[in-house]
Amino acid sequence: MINIERLSRNIEELSKIGRTPNGGINRFSYFAEEKAANELVKQFMESAGMTVHYDSVGNLVGRLEGASDLPAILLGSHLDTVPDGGRFDGSLGVLSAIEVVHSLKENGIMLQHPVNVVAFKDEEGTRFGFGMIGSRAVAGSLTRKDLQRTDDEGISIEQAIADYGIPRRPLADSKLENIRLYLEVHIEQGKILENNGVSVGNVTGIAGPLWLKFRLKGQSEHAGATPMNQRQDALVGASLIIAEVEKTSKHFSSAVATVGKLSVKPNGVNVIPGEVEWTIDIRDIDEDIRDELERRIKQFAEKIANERHLKLEITELQRVKPIQCNEGLQNIIKESIEEIGQPVVSLPSGAGHDGMQFNGLFPIGMIFVRSKDGVSHNPGEFSSEEDIEIATKVLFKTMMKL
Amino acid sequence: MINIERLSRNIEELSKIGRTPNGGINRFSYFAEEKAANELVKQFMESAGMTVHYDSVGNLVGRLEGASDLPAILLGSHLDTVPDGGRFDGSLGVLSAIEVVHSLKENGIMLQHPVNVVAFKDEEGTRFGFGMIGSRAVAGSLTRKDLQRTDDEGISIEQAIADYGIPRRPLADSKLENIRLYLEVHIEQGKILENNGVSVGNVTGIAGPLWLKFRLKGQSEHAGATPMNQRQDALVGASLIIAEVEKTSKHFSSAVATVGKLSVKPNGVNVIPGEVEWTIDIRDIDEDIRDELERRIKQFAEKIANERHLKLEITELQRVKPIQCNEGLQNIIKESIEEIGQPVVSLPSGAGHDGMQFNGLFPIGMIFVRSKDGVSHNPGEFSSEEDIEIATKVLFKTMMKL
Repeated sequence: MINIERLSRNIEELSKIGRTPNGGINRFSYFAEEKAANELVKQFMESAGMTVHYDSVGNLVGRLEGASDLPAILLGSHLDTVPDGGRFDGSLGVLSAIEVVHSLKENGIMLQHPVNVVAFKDEEGTRFGFGMIGSRAVAGSLTRKDLQRTDDEGISIEQAIADYGIPRRPLADSKLENIRLYLEVHIEQGKILENNGVSVGNVTGIAGPLWLKFRLKGQSEHAGATPMNQRQDALVGASLIIAEVEKTSKHFSSAVATVGKLSVKPNGVNVIPGEVEWTIDIRDIDEDIRDELERRIKQFAEKIANERHLKLEITELQRVKPIQCNEGLQNIIKESIEEIGQPVVSLPSGAGHDGMQFNGLFPIGMIFVRSKDGVSHNPGEFSSEEDIEIATKVLFKTMMKL
Repeated sequence: MINIERLSRNIEELSKIGRTPNGGINRFSYFAEEKAANELVKQFMESAGMTVHYDSVGNLVGRLEGASDLPAILLGSHLDTVPDGGRFDGSLGVLSAIEVVHSLKENGIMLQHPVNVVAFKDEEGTRFGFGMIGSRAVAGSLTRKDLQRTDDEGISIEQAIADYGIPRRPLADSKLENIRLYLEVHIEQGKILENNGVSVGNVTGIAGPLWLKFRLKGQSEHAGATPMNQRQDALVGASLIIAEVEKTSKHFSSAVATVGKLSVKPNGVNVIPGEVEWTIDIRDIDEDIRDELERRIKQFAEKIANERHLKLEITELQRVKPIQCNEGLQNIIKESIEEIGQPVVSLPSGAGHDGMQFNGLFPIGMIFVRSKDGVSHNPGEFSSEEDIEIATKVLFKTMMKL
């Protein structure tokens, strides 16, 4: 069905570009290493029988024509990495898609639908603090204003595109019209598949993060001279709220809520904390559930603040819309998993992916591959050849069923 | 009974030495400002009819002879400050003691007991990170080795004493023998008296601090990709323990326990905390109660660590023995407070004081003065003239009853 030796070879070859001394990868958008990676992948696409071009933001777009004029199936992922990133995040999605096309071509199978494989520009946001540049362009939502964002050196995205060698063309040229659906293979970046002992998973949706900042103010007083019942200890208040964040979010099976960052003022051993600031990252693939969880957490925090005479301020840092994977497409993916003889596990994606940009435009579906120890964004990122083969077969089967 | 105008004038005059631009005071041990303060207070002592000398560590010791050969009553406090400290902490204890002696002398009252008033060297520990130098010397517990401790400039206590102009003499010369008891007036540095609406309080003991450092290790994972029931979140564990620290310590009326300092690793918005480190400051005037509170907190922390598969490490940072004020002396102080027509409030001292050094040598008693808003170690430190007068009268009356 597919050629795993070829796919593994391509993964290995691509992983050499931007390799860091400790085995990680540095490929930041529009820089030489990332360009070299695109050029290599362009060759893979051409070998697979696709016609290839760079669009107006530098997305690498490969095209395999179909037997009919039907809307195209869009496959893809990204080639850029976080600093010292792994060899599978992004790359696997692009290379597994090319492998499926290569296998189709090799086996003389012509689908009714044309197929577009895209290596989307800058999914990670490492360089400009603004990710999914390529998928935004493909969705038609990227603006000229977005391109004015700059990296740490003061170079704008627009300038980076020009330096990359892309002639200035309308952004609208990058928008892909007439797309039937989007499919992506990606490593899980978590441990759900590993804990379930399965190679692949069907993704139910992408849980958009809601980031809130909480600040709780009390009274900073002498730890020895202030009796327990006369305190307005901001850290005890914060602790009660943080414990509740976990407890409440457990009521919703798919939701997660995390206090990841916290600071205490004045932060002295013998001083009662007068102010504590922390963030809460709340995610669910269902926006209503996320809203409800947010409401309960805020309500509890206000209760604690009132009871303890603390002053609470809540600021919203970001609110990204979660998206649901298409149910029909999920069913086809699940069937494909079953047919390969694997147990079907469905799971949400906690991390963001290019597919989010296509919400409301056309259906999306994702296939996750087991990640060793859930590690990603790290040289230790690993998915086995066996799991990658299964995932690519699932992608192949899913394509065949469409 | 006492001359409050004179006492207030002396407080005002002393507060000008080392005054900072924002109204605070910088007087660090053995430096010029602190020496000038001692010289001024030496004059006050002499005006009050005392014979005065500097002992081998630079304690300023005033002596008023008694009618008999009985052991002396020791009064005192300190003249050094924390950076940008207040005008009452320490100074009030020395000046109120001198005022009592002055009034006795003025009114031709000769006590049976001689009286020693001492301005103890370096109570705060600001300069050498080692406080109560003077009272340790008076107690006979200061060693030559202690004098090798250095300040930030590398100057040792021994060198500082020499630079101060004190000829080298045995440390044992500073030990005061034949002491009947120790009495000190000090500002409360808390809000108990203010909340009770009273001017002064009888101190039941000095709650020695026990400082522990807790480190809780879990797993640092992706906040989006790790379901709630698969986490080892060190901050949620810490939060449960911190909330319990407050709850448990409320079971002991006089005990206090405070988590003042806390840090989270890696401290990223979308990363589950893998490690949290925090301090706990536990105090009580009864060591058994403090031990019991420590035991319960540790036990609870271990329970949480076990339940949540977290790794707990506890380190002891310091363990200072709490001391109890002498009951007989407390009764005399309470009677004196009553006779002045004030309600009697007894309270522990959460902060440390010179008297701690005399534990096991002779009885100690302390009289606290109401602090506005509980503020101390700060230019905003304030006790009213009326409250100071009442406290000094209580000291006078207590002396007369001995």
